[in-house]
Amino acid sequence: MTAHPLAPLLAPSSVAIFGASNDPTRISGRSLRYYREAGYKGGLYPINPTRDTVQGLTAYPDLASVPGAVDCAVIAVPANLAIEAMESCVTKGVKGVVMFTAGFAEIGPEGRAMQERITQIARDSGIRLCGPNCLPLGMVTQSGAFGTHLLALAARRGIQVGVWMSTGNEADVAVADGISFMADDPETQAIACYVEAIKDGALFAEAVARARKNGKPVIAMKVGGSAVGAAAAASHTASLAGSDAVYDAALRQLGVERARTPEDLIEIAYACTRGRLPASRRLAVMTMSGGAGVLMADAAEEEGVELTPLSEESQKEVLSWVPFAAPRNPVDVTAQALNDPSILDKSFELLFGKENFPAMIGFFTTWASSPQMAEPLFKSVTGAAARYPDRYFALSAIASPEMQRRYEAAGVGLFEDPWAAVAAVAGAMRCAERIATPPLPMPPVPKNLPPLPQGRIAEHEAKRILAEAGVPILDERLVTNAGQAAAAAVEIGERLVLKIVSPDIPHKTEMGGVMLDVPASEAGAAFDQIVQRVSARAPRAKIDGVLLSPMVKGGVEMILGVQNDPVFGPVVMLGLGGIFVEVLRDVTFRIAPFGIEEAHNMIRELRGAAILEGARGQPPCDIDALAVALSKLSVFVAAQKGQFTSIDVNPLLVRPKGQGAAALDALILTPSAVANDDEVAP
Amino acid sequence: MTAHPLAPLLAPSSVAIFGASNDPTRISGRSLRYYREAGYKGGLYPINPTRDTVQGLTAYPDLASVPGAVDCAVIAVPANLAIEAMESCVTKGVKGVVMFTAGFAEIGPEGRAMQERITQIARDSGIRLCGPNCLPLGMVTQSGAFGTHLLALAARRGIQVGVWMSTGNEADVAVADGISFMADDPETQAIACYVEAIKDGALFAEAVARARKNGKPVIAMKVGGSAVGAAAAASHTASLAGSDAVYDAALRQLGVERARTPEDLIEIAYACTRGRLPASRRLAVMTMSGGAGVLMADAAEEEGVELTPLSEESQKEVLSWVPFAAPRNPVDVTAQALNDPSILDKSFELLFGKENFPAMIGFFTTWASSPQMAEPLFKSVTGAAARYPDRYFALSAIASPEMQRRYEAAGVGLFEDPWAAVAAVAGAMRCAERIATPPLPMPPVPKNLPPLPQGRIAEHEAKRILAEAGVPILDERLVTNAGQAAAAAVEIGERLVLKIVSPDIPHKTEMGGVMLDVPASEAGAAFDQIVQRVSARAPRAKIDGVLLSPMVKGGVEMILGVQNDPVFGPVVMLGLGGIFVEVLRDVTFRIAPFGIEEAHNMIRELRGAAILEGARGQPPCDIDALAVALSKLSVFVAAQKGQFTSIDVNPLLVRPKGQGAAALDALILTPSAVANDDEVAP
Repeated sequence: MTAHPLAPLLAPSSVAIFGASNDPTRISGRSLRYYREAGYKGGLYPINPTRDTVQGLTAYPDLASVPGAVDCAVIAVPANLAIEAMESCVTKGVKGVVMFTAGFAEIGPEGRAMQERITQIARDSGIRLCGPNCLPLGMVTQSGAFGTHLLALAARRGIQVGVWMSTGNEADVAVADGISFMADDPETQAIACYVEAIKDGALFAEAVARARKNGKPVIAMKVGGSAVGAAAAASHTASLAGSDAVYDAALRQLGVERARTPEDLIEIAYACTRGRLPASRRLAVMTMSGGAGVLMADAAEEEGVELTPLSEESQKEVLSWVPFAAPRNPVDVTAQALNDPSILDKSFELLFGKENFPAMIGFFTTWASSPQMAEPLFKSVTGAAARYPDRYFALSAIASPEMQRRYEAAGVGLFEDPWAAVAAVAGAMRCAERIATPPLPMPPVPKNLPPLPQGRIAEHEAKRILAEAGVPILDERLVTNAGQAAAAAVEIGERLVLKIVSPDIPHKTEMGGVMLDVPASEAGAAFDQIVQRVSARAPRAKIDGVLLSPMVKGGVEMILGVQNDPVFGPVVMLGLGGIFVEVLRDVTFRIAPFGIEEAHNMIRELRGAAILEGARGQPPCDIDALAVALSKLSVFVAAQKGQFTSIDVNPLLVRPKGQGAAALDALILTPSAVANDDEVAP
Repeated sequence: MTAHPLAPLLAPSSVAIFGASNDPTRISGRSLRYYREAGYKGGLYPINPTRDTVQGLTAYPDLASVPGAVDCAVIAVPANLAIEAMESCVTKGVKGVVMFTAGFAEIGPEGRAMQERITQIARDSGIRLCGPNCLPLGMVTQSGAFGTHLLALAARRGIQVGVWMSTGNEADVAVADGISFMADDPETQAIACYVEAIKDGALFAEAVARARKNGKPVIAMKVGGSAVGAAAAASHTASLAGSDAVYDAALRQLGVERARTPEDLIEIAYACTRGRLPASRRLAVMTMSGGAGVLMADAAEEEGVELTPLSEESQKEVLSWVPFAAPRNPVDVTAQALNDPSILDKSFELLFGKENFPAMIGFFTTWASSPQMAEPLFKSVTGAAARYPDRYFALSAIASPEMQRRYEAAGVGLFEDPWAAVAAVAGAMRCAERIATPPLPMPPVPKNLPPLPQGRIAEHEAKRILAEAGVPILDERLVTNAGQAAAAAVEIGERLVLKIVSPDIPHKTEMGGVMLDVPASEAGAAFDQIVQRVSARAPRAKIDGVLLSPMVKGGVEMILGVQNDPVFGPVVMLGLGGIFVEVLRDVTFRIAPFGIEEAHNMIRELRGAAILEGARGQPPCDIDALAVALSKLSVFVAAQKGQFTSIDVNPLLVRPKGQGAAALDALILTPSAVANDDEVAP
């Protein structure tokens, strides 16, 4: 049985730390502290010629003085001392080196030469080298065992994980605490999470906002979305998980990149820790294979990445180099660069320079490891990356691990699968976009609102409460006799709806308690008729009166609902009425409160959103009014948190543009009441 | 620059072939033939002590006799001679060996010992070993450059690609030819394709059917689905690509597993070349990490894999070993097996034996490379795989390449990412299911049908033609005066629909040419009224008469359409009427002809299929009648191929169960006619 080649890095039996500081809070003191806090059982040797002890451990003036073998060395000394340290590692027989030192290839030709020297030493001696200037990923995982697995996958991918926390059942420290810590940690560039259940939604939101403010992408894999998975998660972490649809919407709302699989998590994290992020979704694809270009174009469309075509002039330029090239974007220069490697420099210059693409992916298959092309390609790619330090450059290529590390040291990530390259870079683009966009304004939540009435809340009362909160309703009146009905009718409109109001009649329609499209002139007679009809069918029912409202036609019926999510508190649901909700389950969620812009995002997420924009010859609806109603409802439920069990507005009629919206029916359930109206479906 | 470690296997500068036969059609003669046919430029040395020349090349009695260096050796001699051959490779300084020989670990302890000896030789000498008993994948790729890339990815994954064909622009040989060849090739276990555009749909269908009959999964990645991708594919392969939605449906109909990304293609191919396929979709998940169990359950649900729970009794048994285990499925035995490795054997026995699972995935993270657990785990897993040779066993684990090869030699595949493990095994399950299921019966296509009339075909004529083909229509009559109308009305029903029939009036409704819900007693008067109305608005229109049909209510409106796909010929489209087609683009396709069962599959694929089953309090529809109509239409269009441009049945009203279906409108466009009725939407 051969030991794993990365074992000296992943599970060293002893570690020496060059430049270990006595101050555990300083960057140069942290590695030692982390090893000790993690309960590391092997030998720990601080190398520090100025002190006898470091953080309570015996310090050594140099590596040679350390008694016995050293498996792994952490080098955090300035660049000019790093080569000396590296050479002493060779002498000592060290097998793995983690190089935190910065100031190599990223600072120019001199640094690049130093870095190449270090890489050469590692290669000649067989030392596995991680870094230099590795950009650490912070990782928070709930499951310890699976966290270890992710850690191993990250190491195999060449990602340096700076801090890893496993929070387990979260009796105390939660995922949010981990994110919060890493948001402030200067060494952490991006944060990857593996989540089974979030304990406190508000804390999580706060932690993510902090990371976003500090410019750090948060990528999360949330499991337990399936029925079996959720049951397994519950038995595994002993925590009550909210619904996956709510999690999904919440992560989106908070600006977290959700990864679907462990591999996605690792690949997006890799793309986000290359020392730069793509400035926009505009991507240049350069390829030597038309086939790879086609599939990268497919991947780009699926991932929402824009392959904007090159200018006519630039396309002509590409064709002047390679007459049979595809010059649009993907730019397929074919295998011609094998004959004329200057095509590489010219293409990169054209795409980053003249065409000003913020990001590029180059497909170069096995060229990165071919005897003929490996060095010319490396020189061209890393040259372009150095000349354009604000651009994002990734390759889809197959290379030896050593070559991969060389590219990575120059800020260029490598992906074997061109589809995976586009998907991961797209993830980094979304992350960068979120960081660059200020969070949407949060509406203030009023304090000291009058408490909700407890017990059963009648329909008209529920609507009145919501109307005060800003959810529009129609002009409606409760009347108790035919005379009142006739008088009110004149003020309401030409055609009316009458509904019986009785705490004892939950199914109004079935009991004859609803009349539609009644002419105003017949309102008095209709009052008598409806009361008589209901009394005949339900002689013991207490009738409080009849609700009169205008009959409105035209528009689209929406369903709004509010539930108390165990994780995120009041959550607002939106769906299109009818088959969209009932057959297609086309609904979306937001954590309350949220503003009007977020409400618009929510509306756009519906698969049937085109209906609101005026599909099938209908006029466009008043989407603005819907967005306002949603936001107002969210503010109201945030303020009334704990006062209600659920709220349904079903339907909210969204009328043609400019005519607003109106809640046609509403139900507020309070903890002390039982549902008394099943006409309002959940 | 270090050469790629797999370079001796992927791009050897010279190759010796042990046991090369002079007969290029024999398995032992094929390797040599393939190298030569592929235009291999390096040194080729057949090793065959019984001949002076092999296939025209100088043969050598042994490897030592070969002049100069040998980079790679192909060993295809019997198992008892393989060790000797391997040793001569060490002496000669060979860097890579492809071992085709069977009869090692898969045949029992003796073979296993031999195999371990060979692995040991490889390890000690640094030779990269591929095999033994590698199960070759056949690979057909359109793009040559990208094909090479896929080949490299397959090699890195440890998949032996036996035959690779790149078909390029397909002036002659097409993807279908490649599949056909490999379907018959005894060495090929599964076929992976990379497709930009299929040239001849019928040829492709035939090739896939042949592979299916011979028990070989076909996995295809079809690119060019996006707009940019399709344009790039067209310019790259110079072939007219059909619509991606049609490709997608056709691949499903033909029983091809469609891979979304290159990695999916490689991973499913890997899962399909482990020497066995899973017998059903029932899967046992065993794990030492609860977190991994949760995510594998999520992946299983997404992939349609069934994690059936263990019996109560078996669950109790698991708990008797590990009281804090999760015993249901996923079976989480926790890290307890570290303390008591007998839990492994007991679990495998329980799951394959007592619980009779046809397939299992075990998550064992880094155990496969840990000094303590690697060997006990290997022994348990491969022992179970040997005791249950008809079961499918895969691991999600991180192991050294050598350890991976050892597992693979025992028929156990390894996946680092547990999600990827479930997804790939699910792909293999679907492939196995297709192979096990006989193809659905194909209805015979009648020959010598009367040719379609050319020119404009009026609505009632189109309906009559379709009715003869078996698509149901209502009882309708063309009448030319009020008297005829009154007489016909009595026979048709109580309520009628009247439609004007005129070649000059495409927009019947707008010209007042449609009357709905007319009582039969008023049919005569209505005739006069409709003719008068249309004549007033379009005085020059030639009126052929009025079409009378019964007014029917209730049911669901479907849209059926037929297009001539450039690749697959006549293709039938099905969608639900209204918003489903117009807003959600909820349509599906099938290549014509197809039977009733396939039509049912088609209907089930619609996202809104629940509507037909009686959603929202409506009675269930006559889905059987819809399926029959679809199949009959498909047979008709297959018979009339080339005679029409497009056919639309919009709507086909599917009435409540037992009441059948009826085409309410129909349009047949022939090459010589122009669309004359835009009421029938495309």
